[in-house]
Parts: sequence; C-alpha cells; structure tokens
Amino acid sequence: MSDVMLERYRENIREELDRVVNFWMTYSHDTEHGGFFTCIGKDGQIYDELKYVWLQGRQVWMYCRLYRTMERFHKQDILEAAKAGGKFLRQFARVPSNGQTWKCAFCLTKEGKVVKIQRTIFSECFYIMALDELSRVTGDKDMQAEAEQMMDHVIHWVRVDPSELGRTQLSGAEPVNSMAVPMMLLCLVQQLTEERDHDLVEKYRETGNWCVKQILQHIQRDGMAILENVSLEGAELNGCQGRLQNPGHALEAGWFLLQYCATTGDESLQLKAINQFIELQFQRGWDKQHGGLFYFLDVDGHCPTQVRMLSV
Amino acid sequence: MSDVMLERYRENIREELDRVVNFWMTYSHDTEHGGFFTCIGKDGQIYDELKYVWLQGRQVWMYCRLYRTMERFHKQDILEAAKAGGKFLRQFARVPSNGQTWKCAFCLTKEGKVVKIQRTIFSECFYIMALDELSRVTGDKDMQAEAEQMMDHVIHWVRVDPSELGRTQLSGAEPVNSMAVPMMLLCLVQQLTEERDHDLVEKYRETGNWCVKQILQHIQRDGMAILENVSLEGAELNGCQGRLQNPGHALEAGWFLLQYCATTGDESLQLKAINQFIELQFQRGWDKQHGGLFYFLDVDGHCPTQVRMLSV
Repeated sequence: MSDVMLERYRENIREELDRVVNFWMTYSHDTEHGGFFTCIGKDGQIYDELKYVWLQGRQVWMYCRLYRTMERFHKQDILEAAKAGGKFLRQFARVPSNGQTWKCAFCLTKEGKVVKIQRTIFSECFYIMALDELSRVTGDKDMQAEAEQMMDHVIHWVRVDPSELGRTQLSGAEPVNSMAVPMMLLCLVQQLTEERDHDLVEKYRETGNWCVKQILQHIQRDGMAILENVSLEGAELNGCQGRLQNPGHALEAGWFLLQYCATTGDESLQLKAINQFIELQFQRGWDKQHGGLFYFLDVDGHCPTQVRMLSV
Repeated sequence: MSDVMLERYRENIREELDRVVNFWMTYSHDTEHGGFFTCIGKDGQIYDELKYVWLQGRQVWMYCRLYRTMERFHKQDILEAAKAGGKFLRQFARVPSNGQTWKCAFCLTKEGKVVKIQRTIFSECFYIMALDELSRVTGDKDMQAEAEQMMDHVIHWVRVDPSELGRTQLSGAEPVNSMAVPMMLLCLVQQLTEERDHDLVEKYRETGNWCVKQILQHIQRDGMAILENVSLEGAELNGCQGRLQNPGHALEAGWFLLQYCATTGDESLQLKAINQFIELQFQRGWDKQHGGLFYFLDVDGHCPTQVRMLSV
C-alpha cells in the first residue's frame, strides 16, 4: 500500500473516530445514575434504557484508553465520564456467583437493578478491562488489584472449574473450545500486563501462550476457514455449532494475535494472524451485496440457527 | 370473498399441505433413534441433527391430527411415525425440574442426550400437545393422563409458583405478562378438552377464561397494535421489551381466540380476534418488500434487540 493511500486511510479513521466519540459523548451519558445508555438511534434518541454490562465496560475502557494515549482526547470531560461509568459498574454490576466469589450481571436497569445474569465469563471480562484501564489513568491501586482478582477468578472458571458459573452439566452438551473464550482471555492478559512489572507479566505468560494455542485450533478446512467452535482436541464438530463462523470474532482474534507477536517476534504466527484471521475474513465474511461483515455464517452456506431458535 | 375465490384458496392450501407433509415424511424421520430431524435444507439434506423438543411435539401432534381428522392422511405410515416420535419424547425429553416434578428438555442429541434445558414452559406445552393428540388416535389412557398431569404442573408454574422452573428472582426483572404464555395455555385447554367429558371441560374452564383475559391485555395503542409483553396490569412497558411485536404469535392467538368463540358464541370477541389478531397482523406485520411475516417488529420502528444481543 502506498504512503499516500495509507495516509488517506489514517485520515478517514481519524474523522470516523472523532465522529463516533462525539456521538457517544453527546447522547449516551446518564448524568443522573452514572453509566451509559447503549440503545440509541442515529438521531440520538434513547430507545431503550437497559444497561448492558459489557457495553458499559467497553465504553469505560475506550474513554480511558483514548484519554491516556491520544492527546486530542486527553480532556477532563472524557475522564469524568469514564470515572462515572466505572463507579456505576463497581456499585451495581457485581453479583454473587454460585460459589465463594462474585460474578457480573449481564444487564441492569438504568438505576442499576439486575435484569439478567449469564452463565458465561464475558461480562466479567469487560469489567476487568474497564477497571484495569481506568486504574491506569486514575492511579487507583485498589482498582487495579480488583481487576487482577477478577481475572484470576475468570482463569479459574475457564481452565480449572466452571461450576461457580452455575451451568448445569448435561450429558448431550459436550465441552467445546469456543474461540470467544481464549480470544477474550488473551486480550485481558495483554491489557493487564501492558507496561506492568516483570512479576505480573510472568504471572500471566503461560495463560497467554495457552490462549494462542486454543485460538489456533480454530483454523480449519486447510486454512480456509476460522470456525467459532471446535472440540477440545481441535477437531471440527458436527452440525450448525461446528460450522459456525463469526467473522467479527475472527478479526478480533487477529488483532490480539498481532499484539502477541509484537512482544514475541513470532513471524510465522504473524502471517497466520494476517492471512487467516484478518484478510480471509474480509474476503469470506463480507456481505458483497449490502456491505458490512456478516454476524454469523455457516461455512457450508446453510442457515445459521442462532436466529431461528430465538423463540418458539 | 366469493365462493370461487374461496374454493381456489382451499385448493391452494390442499396442495401446499400435501407438499409439506410429503417433505417431512420423506426427509425428517430418524428411523434409527426415533423422533424427527428438524434442520433440513430445501433439497432434503439434514444439516444439523439436534432434536428440538418443541418441534418433535409439533410434528407428533400434526401427524396425529391429520391421521385422525382427514381421510387422505389416515395412513399407517403416518401413524407409525407419530408413535415413534411419541416414544422418543417420552423416553428422552423428560428431565428432573428444580422441584418434586419433572420438566422437558429444550434440545436433545439425535440419540436423546440432553443438550439444553430452558427455564420456560414451552417445551412442556408441546409435549402435552403431542401426548394428548397421540392418545386420541391410539386410545392410550395412560398417555392421556400423563398429558393432563403435565398440564397441571404447567398451570401451577404459570398461575401459582414458577420456582420449579429454576429462574432466579432478580430485582430488575419485573414480572411480565408475555402473550406467548396465555396463548399456549389456551391452545392446550382447547386441545385437552376437545370432545372430552364434562368434568374435564369444567376442570379447565376457568383457566381458559383467564387466558383469554390475559391475551386481550395485549391489544394496545388504541387497538392498532398487539404488543408481546405488557405489565401484569395490562399497561405498556418501557423500552424494547414493551414495544416488541411478534406478528406470528398474534396470529396464533387469533386462531385460539376464534376457537374459543366457537364454543362460547361471543361475537364481540370474535370481531377482535379477526380485526386485531389476524387482519391487523397481515397489514402491519407483512414484509412488503420481500414477502413473509416479520419475526420481530418494534412498534415504533426501532431496531429489535433480540438479534443484537445474541453474542458479545
């Protein structure tokens, strides 16, 4: 790609970023209860007041990351909004788990009352992401410690014992390597260890390596597809679950793999990240008719069952 | 509508029914394990072998109902397939509930192992529907009694105490009158009491009347919309949940309301069933661009959140 093209893309992205940040700064802040509204029309109208915890976490993280790393976003109002979001999360998102510890709600009312709890790790992951990044701009060591503590719970649920998540063991539901899990964990390892001291980097190094191995199991069909769910041994699974592709997840995984390569210098892995997790997704996961990435795709072209089975 | 038009529609429906029954008879039967495959391409290819319990129940019911009431479907192979489906359901679909009784799985492997259990009543409803109709063609009194027993559990969960379903009470999740519930219950009251003796009809009469009252609460916006979720007092709820329309559910409700009117002779109710639950749905719920009924619609035209929140 020529320097001119590259600069044009940069300019484009810069404008889009300003436009997006401005939109969320203008319309999403709940100045009464803290936290952010997330169901907002193009005109700024809030059409649902529920607060999804993962989106709260993402927004706190995004504001803090922009504040910390880009001069034009290093503004007091961005920092204050992030702090209010973090306060809302700490006050309302934590709920008791099935075990000794706590987990996060999936969805809250605008006042912070719990609407739904999922038996997965994802709300917790975005909670960790938010708290760690917020602790970096505020210097709050307690907050950083809380993020690390939650991270250790999540790793325990994923790698040792998921029973605190509250899922029932069912004979027909065999354990699956779902790419979302190692992808999110790798992202968090990178978040928590970035520019931290040696001990913390070492603490999570093995988990990071494990995540990369788990993610690479999803390269299937002779490198021509990233499948969202594979067996624990890395084999393709039967049925719709096994053929499911989620191009957006694959792209995210590519992002985190590239970050991993930046620290390890592994060029062969870097090539896989670019070819399979990024370029292939834009070739195969792009809707050529209407534009945009498909949310779900069946690798053999059948109808994904995600939407079909929503209601009876 | 003229007699000629009516006869043309009848002919159309007759042909479609033959085509559909033939498709399912040809491709869906699992002759090895019993029950039916339900993820089948237009070409008959089975692209997923999971067995959704509500679809198993619907198919058993459909085969038996056709066998019992229409001469051209009164065939041994239809009856045998229905029996094999009923056997599969009774053998595998029942699972322990949170309490003293049992409930139904939502999804099974082709061999009958449990993949997923929902904390709702719908798989149970289709189980009841299947067993009651099957008992009518086989004369199996035990089976009829089992359907009735399960029905009494479901009524208890809906009207007295849902705790056996295993849902956690959450402070932000207020109780809702969801139309799917009284609609399904009304359907089952009609199924279980059709041409049965006086005592059974009397046993469920009050529940049937209650269902009709609950369904009518969903006529909202001065009669110009059927909303899927309303408050227990019949008021419109905030947000996407409150604005949700499900045209297919409304049509089903219209069907059961018309059946109810056929026994009670209530002409004002009959008019509501036709105008609001049927005609209005074809006017407002029809996709004029691509044809077909919309799965979900927001009454104010916002984006329904069903699909957006499937994965993070």
